[in-house]
Amino acid sequence: MSEPHNPQPQNGDIPRYTGLPTFFRLPFGALSEALDIGIVGVPWDGGTTNRAGTRHGPRELRNASSLIRRVHPVSLISPYDLARVGDLGDVGVNPMDLQDSLAKIEAFYQQLVSQQVLPLTAGGDHLTTLPILRALGKAQPLGLIHFDAHSDTNDSYFGHERFTHGTPFRRAVEEGLIDPRRTVQIGIRGSLFSAHDHAFAAECGITVIPMEQVAARGIDAVMQQARQIVGDLPVYVSFDIDVLDPAFAPGTGTPEIGGLTSLQGQQCIRHLQGLHLVGADVVEVSPPFDQGNLTSLTGATMMFELLCQLADARYRQSSQSTGVKL
Amino acid sequence: MSEPHNPQPQNGDIPRYTGLPTFFRLPFGALSEALDIGIVGVPWDGGTTNRAGTRHGPRELRNASSLIRRVHPVSLISPYDLARVGDLGDVGVNPMDLQDSLAKIEAFYQQLVSQQVLPLTAGGDHLTTLPILRALGKAQPLGLIHFDAHSDTNDSYFGHERFTHGTPFRRAVEEGLIDPRRTVQIGIRGSLFSAHDHAFAAECGITVIPMEQVAARGIDAVMQQARQIVGDLPVYVSFDIDVLDPAFAPGTGTPEIGGLTSLQGQQCIRHLQGLHLVGADVVEVSPPFDQGNLTSLTGATMMFELLCQLADARYRQSSQSTGVKL
Amino acid sequence: MSEPHNPQPQNGDIPRYTGLPTFFRLPFGALSEALDIGIVGVPWDGGTTNRAGTRHGPRELRNASSLIRRVHPVSLISPYDLARVGDLGDVGVNPMDLQDSLAKIEAFYQQLVSQQVLPLTAGGDHLTTLPILRALGKAQPLGLIHFDAHSDTNDSYFGHERFTHGTPFRRAVEEGLIDPRRTVQIGIRGSLFSAHDHAFAAECGITVIPMEQVAARGIDAVMQQARQIVGDLPVYVSFDIDVLDPAFAPGTGTPEIGGLTSLQGQQCIRHLQGLHLVGADVVEVSPPFDQGNLTSLTGATMMFELLCQLADARYRQSSQSTGVKL
Amino acid sequence: MSEPHNPQPQNGDIPRYTGLPTFFRLPFGALSEALDIGIVGVPWDGGTTNRAGTRHGPRELRNASSLIRRVHPVSLISPYDLARVGDLGDVGVNPMDLQDSLAKIEAFYQQLVSQQVLPLTAGGDHLTTLPILRALGKAQPLGLIHFDAHSDTNDSYFGHERFTHGTPFRRAVEEGLIDPRRTVQIGIRGSLFSAHDHAFAAECGITVIPMEQVAARGIDAVMQQARQIVGDLPVYVSFDIDVLDPAFAPGTGTPEIGGLTSLQGQQCIRHLQGLHLVGADVVEVSPPFDQGNLTSLTGATMMFELLCQLADARYRQSSQSTGVKL
Amino acid sequence: MSEPHNPQPQNGDIPRYTGLPTFFRLPFGALSEALDIGIVGVPWDGGTTNRAGTRHGPRELRNASSLIRRVHPVSLISPYDLARVGDLGDVGVNPMDLQDSLAKIEAFYQQLVSQQVLPLTAGGDHLTTLPILRALGKAQPLGLIHFDAHSDTNDSYFGHERFTHGTPFRRAVEEGLIDPRRTVQIGIRGSLFSAHDHAFAAECGITVIPMEQVAARGIDAVMQQARQIVGDLPVYVSFDIDVLDPAFAPGTGTPEIGGLTSLQGQQCIRHLQGLHLVGADVVEVSPPFDQGNLTSLTGATMMFELLCQLADARYRQSSQSTGVKL
Amino acid sequence: MSEPHNPQPQNGDIPRYTGLPTFFRLPFGALSEALDIGIVGVPWDGGTTNRAGTRHGPRELRNASSLIRRVHPVSLISPYDLARVGDLGDVGVNPMDLQDSLAKIEAFYQQLVSQQVLPLTAGGDHLTTLPILRALGKAQPLGLIHFDAHSDTNDSYFGHERFTHGTPFRRAVEEGLIDPRRTVQIGIRGSLFSAHDHAFAAECGITVIPMEQVAARGIDAVMQQARQIVGDLPVYVSFDIDVLDPAFAPGTGTPEIGGLTSLQGQQCIRHLQGLHLVGADVVEVSPPFDQGNLTSLTGATMMFELLCQLADARYRQSSQSTGVKL
Repeated sequence: MSEPHNPQPQNGDIPRYTGLPTFFRLPFGALSEALDIGIVGVPWDGGTTNRAGTRHGPRELRNASSLIRRVHPVSLISPYDLARVGDLGDVGVNPMDLQDSLAKIEAFYQQLVSQQVLPLTAGGDHLTTLPILRALGKAQPLGLIHFDAHSDTNDSYFGHERFTHGTPFRRAVEEGLIDPRRTVQIGIRGSLFSAHDHAFAAECGITVIPMEQVAARGIDAVMQQARQIVGDLPVYVSFDIDVLDPAFAPGTGTPEIGGLTSLQGQQCIRHLQGLHLVGADVVEVSPPFDQGNLTSLTGATMMFELLCQLADARYRQSSQSTGVKL
Repeated sequence: MSEPHNPQPQNGDIPRYTGLPTFFRLPFGALSEALDIGIVGVPWDGGTTNRAGTRHGPRELRNASSLIRRVHPVSLISPYDLARVGDLGDVGVNPMDLQDSLAKIEAFYQQLVSQQVLPLTAGGDHLTTLPILRALGKAQPLGLIHFDAHSDTNDSYFGHERFTHGTPFRRAVEEGLIDPRRTVQIGIRGSLFSAHDHAFAAECGITVIPMEQVAARGIDAVMQQARQIVGDLPVYVSFDIDVLDPAFAPGTGTPEIGGLTSLQGQQCIRHLQGLHLVGADVVEVSPPFDQGNLTSLTGATMMFELLCQLADARYRQSSQSTGVKL
Repeated sequence: MSEPHNPQPQNGDIPRYTGLPTFFRLPFGALSEALDIGIVGVPWDGGTTNRAGTRHGPRELRNASSLIRRVHPVSLISPYDLARVGDLGDVGVNPMDLQDSLAKIEAFYQQLVSQQVLPLTAGGDHLTTLPILRALGKAQPLGLIHFDAHSDTNDSYFGHERFTHGTPFRRAVEEGLIDPRRTVQIGIRGSLFSAHDHAFAAECGITVIPMEQVAARGIDAVMQQARQIVGDLPVYVSFDIDVLDPAFAPGTGTPEIGGLTSLQGQQCIRHLQGLHLVGADVVEVSPPFDQGNLTSLTGATMMFELLCQLADARYRQSSQSTGVKL
Repeated sequence: MSEPHNPQPQNGDIPRYTGLPTFFRLPFGALSEALDIGIVGVPWDGGTTNRAGTRHGPRELRNASSLIRRVHPVSLISPYDLARVGDLGDVGVNPMDLQDSLAKIEAFYQQLVSQQVLPLTAGGDHLTTLPILRALGKAQPLGLIHFDAHSDTNDSYFGHERFTHGTPFRRAVEEGLIDPRRTVQIGIRGSLFSAHDHAFAAECGITVIPMEQVAARGIDAVMQQARQIVGDLPVYVSFDIDVLDPAFAPGTGTPEIGGLTSLQGQQCIRHLQGLHLVGADVVEVSPPFDQGNLTSLTGATMMFELLCQLADARYRQSSQSTGVKL
Repeated sequence: MSEPHNPQPQNGDIPRYTGLPTFFRLPFGALSEALDIGIVGVPWDGGTTNRAGTRHGPRELRNASSLIRRVHPVSLISPYDLARVGDLGDVGVNPMDLQDSLAKIEAFYQQLVSQQVLPLTAGGDHLTTLPILRALGKAQPLGLIHFDAHSDTNDSYFGHERFTHGTPFRRAVEEGLIDPRRTVQIGIRGSLFSAHDHAFAAECGITVIPMEQVAARGIDAVMQQARQIVGDLPVYVSFDIDVLDPAFAPGTGTPEIGGLTSLQGQQCIRHLQGLHLVGADVVEVSPPFDQGNLTSLTGATMMFELLCQLADARYRQSSQSTGVKL
Repeated sequence: MSEPHNPQPQNGDIPRYTGLPTFFRLPFGALSEALDIGIVGVPWDGGTTNRAGTRHGPRELRNASSLIRRVHPVSLISPYDLARVGDLGDVGVNPMDLQDSLAKIEAFYQQLVSQQVLPLTAGGDHLTTLPILRALGKAQPLGLIHFDAHSDTNDSYFGHERFTHGTPFRRAVEEGLIDPRRTVQIGIRGSLFSAHDHAFAAECGITVIPMEQVAARGIDAVMQQARQIVGDLPVYVSFDIDVLDPAFAPGTGTPEIGGLTSLQGQQCIRHLQGLHLVGADVVEVSPPFDQGNLTSLTGATMMFELLCQLADARYRQSSQSTGVKL
């Protein structure tokens, strides 16, 4: 069994606004096999076609995460009792060179894969997810639960740019990193470039659940469908903060009104319990466009929701195996 | 049939934050018979009794509208394929003189009427709607679907001021511009000056659906009722941004908490399909009170929702007729 | 019967942004037996363990309250026709000394009690409620309806600090000021220090209705339960603004995403009609963290909702008794 | 001699953020002969040709003035020891009707004149100064020291509007309210409509000291010249906050970069000592465009600088005369 | 002689906040030989090593430029009477590809060169200046007057990136686009990576006038030196907004405190009169980091200062030649 | 000699917005004799009588300090080459208990004294300086160079509170921690509670150089006088950010207009070279009142200016002695 890991300050012994803002005030350090889950920042927005700023996401997500305590209020999961969690710092990226950055990100996550550490990522723009999937989905295509206002399956921008934050999942399908039949996109909305924007997704078998369906059917039904789509095999979760309505998450580059409430976003993640999770991210938090750190707080809280699920998944995986890691 | 009109940059060939911010990056120019729908700014807040600033609405609505793409995500309507749409610029108003401004606005819209161009207006405060109705409702009283936190049917302010943004619809009834029995007000809420504030509306036959009814009955039921009230005759749609909760639209002069969500606002407009629409406006967006352009984005998106309905209505009207215009 | 009291400017005779911002533009003055309800500011945040700033709450709540008119839009209650209401100013507090401040607050409210004036309070942090309850609950333990993201029943902070804004209701139970079996906490959510954070509440008989229950059961059902819990005996209402989602109330020190909407908050208060209300407060509005005064407006509106209920309760109490006060 | 007047809370006995924000925490009340100086708010921006919002100036200037203590740090003047000062509230204005508002403002100040109370005004836009001068300059034309980025001596706007915040001093000269040869304008800068914008001022004898002269000659030399221009006869001081650089006063409607620092602004006022001052104003503070209340604080501090000079002038006037007032 | 060009609305005939925000409300259109000066936006921040956002500079600079009138207040130059000026729109750039963007920018400006149109550019980050110089300095190396907090002559970033906004002038020297002995950098300050940061500049003959020298010697002396350095030959002016103190220009990516005031910045440009100017830019305005549009207003005003000098230079050049263009 | 210490990332090898925001991206760790200078945060505002928020100062000062590079631009001092510097984290304070916090702060700094580590402190409010002086001035009274808008030598607040951020230097004189004849206060301004506010300072021999003297005499003369006052004996430097004009440092609790520019603030510190410095602080940075992090950036830059002087002083002290530490 995973050794309990108890790094946070106890019950209010010092004010939470003090000290260094690591993620959830966790220990900060290099990757190590002694970890079960590594939290990683990717301070990069080189794939952004419109309003940028997500390069500042990891720092502000860390900052806001100081407000998060130790235990989940509904599941009562304490991730630090189920798994060894650490803040692994930021990937060294290159704001001048898109392909160099993609390579560096993939290399960083390859290390986590080789040490069997589950990644929880703070983006960065959504192109960040592509090199993460290249590392995690190398062995076999992953299932994907993708929360977003946008399908991000466009082919190219500006004539010929195939690597942008609007294209990662088309590339991921093409590269065999995700299994489109085990991929579901939830909360899609916002005006389209053309009536055929979702044709690729439809043709390759991705299930798109647009916002109007979410509103009509409710979170429970939608998430039940999502669980069925991804099944019991390994699944990655990508949470683009713009799936939330901009009233709840104004600090993002391509806001679309009419989205999920924060509570609905939390409910979605709470429905993930029991899945075979292998990693997760929260992306597209853009602090320069935030209002009073609301989006950073929301993003950090969604990261905690995901951390609880990852810790629970890891704990279950460990209990069921005789894995070297445990 | 209306000649397709395809003025916008294609599928992401240049970044959307570049170039001049006309409405939806449409061509900008003078009124012409070659248009089906003209988008007009009325940069004027001379009717505002409280916090002003809507004179800056058109510019920021244009600015935010750059984020809107070409096709509606639910109906898949592309307004530019159904109608010829142009940005007609701003009405030249007079911030020093209320009556002069009312006259100038009416004259501007009278030109659109004479050229059979449907107006979509970006206010401006809600008094703006009165001179628009004077131009559009001259021939016969119009039906009206009015989204607002306030009934705007007060008699006067400050002793004797009968022309303010709190009185336009009383004046419109008195002047025979709208048919009160074909008028419905949706989302009304907020504290009252007296228990009799809505007496005029009730007496003349306006249907008031207050917010607590909207919450209890749901958007579908309310909008079904609204459609029945206005029927098949010509109808104008006025969308005061303060019908939305200030969490979703903080940039307005007289906010009232407890309003619609943005999604509910969108759903309302989506229920208008098939009505005999002759014009629409989005008013009371006040950029100086906005937070991070959220209200401008919301207002621009509501304008796009309305544009899709207007284009669809115009297309249907044209198809069913042998009208000179088409 | 209570003499009607009609202090506000009539139907829009001067703009509402003019003049001094007393609460609801009411007369400002010293406590007097001629009042039924006194509105009091407690500009103090000495109990705050995290982000402070609620010392500025009363001033900004007064400022925002200028936007509120005379009559409730749903109940049509005009509080000023049912009760004599005044703005009693701010309690003189001491930002250097927590215990001195608690004593000064208690003494101030003891005066209201002795003159049978019902208090409506604008905080200030939530520790403010403790000395108010010491004044109001001295004779007999009160029932309590408590809206909050947090239970505020922790034992201590920072090793040994027992008087903080995270502990008032544990102290209130210990001191016999509230009856835990007649106490209900609504909207509780947010990560916990430990899985046992709510053990005290559970053990002493406080009913905790967490946010996920509110979402699942709806406001009507929850408030029906709340009414049954407090019954017909005297009850105090404490409304921590952070019960609302930070999209609706960003200006608070310990925000937790996933909360009530403003409309749900209003609906909660509207369900209180007919209870034996003896006082109420709105606390934890922190203007330095607010965005465009949204939280101040929301707090002021919630105060008006509570004022209508207090006025109605006072009027009913007076009518049913031969009380000296009336 | 003027009876000492000592209305403010003493040396820090309660926190300055508490209580009602009257000007400088002075008593609030009706005009009375018992006063020497009356502070008046004119919450009106009906003369604004561009970005408005100064209607909210008086409230925020009052709010910020709580930070001002009792005694001037350089002159050691305590205005409350030299003169009886009160906050007279706001003039009831009419945002719908420019001429009606001008009449109401003039009537209000006529009362002060008739009771020999010196006015210190918080605007409001600069057209506000015209009706004040109509009241004060009725008997004889006044001298004027006018701090501003703009000369405000244009003839008309929008074709024929002669009463705007860009025209008051041309009207004042035409109406004989000020003596142009005893009028000096300091800090003028900003692009011009035409090379002849200042022709009227030059022709009628107004001395314009543009910003580049202020920078080259220094405050001492400029103010020495200003004193010589106005001489010993009655003089009014009008301080448009936009004379300051927008780094120091961003919250104004027509900012022009390259202006005075706040310290230079203070030095200007400190040079007024000994003049025959009959009134003063601070205008064009527009809170909706302010950043963190910096402009309100600056405006309130400039008002205190002027108050010290007015109190000193009044005290000297009283001492030298056998005037009925004293 | 250049045909007078009079495109702006006359003396206040409509409010300046109305209509489309082209630069200085000039005509918007394609490049043409009929122009003398073309104003160009480069909405691109691909060279930014730190905080980005200047991609939004052109739009907000256009927006703020509406506040600028027709005539310079000190020189009384009206640029539109001396030269034909137009807004040429934005260069189509590629946020995904640095080298592609550099090529596109160079090609755009090559067109202006070939049509003898002087460019006034609104950046964009400072790497923008490199491709502009490639177009303008192709024939012969230009003199350069460079206002900046940073020398921007570093060799590379992030190991090997030679094209960033911290390296353009080293590249320009290496490529022979500017003559280092006719190059002067003014206002340099801010902490250094190493004590040798300015070694390249010193070795190749660039004159660096750091901020402490500007403060000690004054603007007049410094600009006299600058004029001597560049002499009578063609000179380009590059104005990085961060040469100003962040109190005056907060909206920039790499602010350094202790800079010029806005007035000093204006005085610098006013000293350029009579030089052989061939182009100018204002770069590094980053709206997402701006406060209340102050930096955009400042940047637009500096552009107007430069426009007046460019127009004057063009007029003199034309008068002295028999040039085909005139 | 001090062993060179080279902890920062080299010349731009990774973007500066990445990684954890320790002070100047220095190593973070516990106190050790291996250090020469320790940077300490005191996240505490328990002494604040007015607008608080400086408890958040250390975190935002750390955040902003990422923008500072390694070498001083004027002196070319690289502090990390002269001294071993580390980020020692935050003192654990108690927001509930003023005296407990003072004791904890003193104990923390007593450790630095005992290990001969010079402290550079990021406040917190100005009462923070008192316990620091209790630790540093225990052996003998220190000289003090104090930059501030306020003398902070009041006796008490709110009747009897002797320990506030308005009283630390009176207490320090009374407790014999500073030598008043070797104490100088620079930049004092702002309205006074009474004309006698500075009587204590005058009587005990503190030299007060008010802002109007600084403006008249210039920084060079003032700092020359300051150096003479403190002489060659040990001296502490306390820099209250409100000595700067609020245009340059808006984020503070008690702003007073008319202060120093940032450049003047820097020049002041640059004049300290050669003094026997034993510690320094930057206090009263209040992030909740900041605008776009300008004050945090300014405070961090002032800390770097002080760090360069402390490192230089330490290096000189070490070179001149046979001290155990080196």
